[in-house]
Amino acid sequence: MKQHQETLTVSPEGRGLHEITPRVAEAVRRAGITTGLCLVFIRHTSASLVIQENADPSARRDLERWFEKAAPDGDPDHEHTAEGPDDMPSHIRSALTSTSEQIPVVDGKLGLGTWQGLYLFEHRRRPGSRKLIVHVWGE
Amino acid sequence: MKQHQETLTVSPEGRGLHEITPRVAEAVRRAGITTGLCLVFIRHTSASLVIQENADPSARRDLERWFEKAAPDGDPDHEHTAEGPDDMPSHIRSALTSTSEQIPVVDGKLGLGTWQGLYLFEHRRRPGSRKLIVHVWGE
Amino acid sequence: MKQHQETLTVSPEGRGLHEITPRVAEAVRRAGITTGLCLVFIRHTSASLVIQENADPSARRDLERWFEKAAPDGDPDHEHTAEGPDDMPSHIRSALTSTSEQIPVVDGKLGLGTWQGLYLFEHRRRPGSRKLIVHVWGE
Repeated sequence: MKQHQETLTVSPEGRGLHEITPRVAEAVRRAGITTGLCLVFIRHTSASLVIQENADPSARRDLERWFEKAAPDGDPDHEHTAEGPDDMPSHIRSALTSTSEQIPVVDGKLGLGTWQGLYLFEHRRRPGSRKLIVHVWGE
Repeated sequence: MKQHQETLTVSPEGRGLHEITPRVAEAVRRAGITTGLCLVFIRHTSASLVIQENADPSARRDLERWFEKAAPDGDPDHEHTAEGPDDMPSHIRSALTSTSEQIPVVDGKLGLGTWQGLYLFEHRRRPGSRKLIVHVWGE
Repeated sequence: MKQHQETLTVSPEGRGLHEITPRVAEAVRRAGITTGLCLVFIRHTSASLVIQENADPSARRDLERWFEKAAPDGDPDHEHTAEGPDDMPSHIRSALTSTSEQIPVVDGKLGLGTWQGLYLFEHRRRPGSRKLIVHVWGE
């Protein structure tokens, strides 16, 4: 078994789901692994990862709307407000979704289902660039 | 280190938690690995995975009831309704739980705690069959 | 590639987020791996894992407050109450967060972002000790 580790920088334009499947698929190609696994890890706590439906954009809008109601910006319950009304909701959304996702590598490609895409879920309204580590291992 | 990858097909009868621990334990036996890790990945976005209490069925019923209230079918907020009132709630439930779970392999067996079971969490009321990838690696 | 597996016992004093980054970092040092991955798995369903902001304690308090409102103790909807009013909320919180977390190992250390810490998220008010498995693999 061998492994391959690289860092990706993603610059989301704003809050919401940003597809990163092609970027991660390229990293898997560079790894030169036929059968194995791919881990994607995001080095932040105000943006996260989620695997979601990749066909109809309305599904992503509905998902964002759910989080906007469940963890609203400017919630008066929050103490942690120094970085703005969208800071604490970002941490809550991150805790409810994933800091890392694993996807099997099958025949040299990401073994996602037909309707699955991997998304960076940006929670800040004015985000900076985001660092992700992609680690691929197998044979 | 060596690895073993296989696909499991599970056919849940309806919405809810369906235990798959024995199916995954068999895959670990077939892998012939004593110490390592087991990843289970579900290739869908309207069913997910969760590790939950395996003793009292009332815990699973309460968990389902929580999700029914948190992401109700037919929510008028949803745009994405073409596949029925339980479609978008399925995606939300999937985002809140897990597309993959990892379990250590200890002494050739799944290293789950005494009260832990691995469940396919089916979110659709009339599901089709579900494909999972089990990947085991170690020594 | 080589691997290292060990068990950690953590004794949280009560409900809430308990940082375990230093404990896991020590296990990574013991593994003697320069580039690879670290999995942490918790063998319980009433405590879980979460990667959160490690700087301002108010972020952790706000996160706990969110869960106290989303899955309140003593919810009259719950059937599963034999072990007390905080038992079923513990299972719900565990389902919404993570049973395992993976962190890349970079230059022999946990590749966390600057503001990330790994926490045991204890959900019971009077917890016993908790068992975690740390598995590190790579080169």
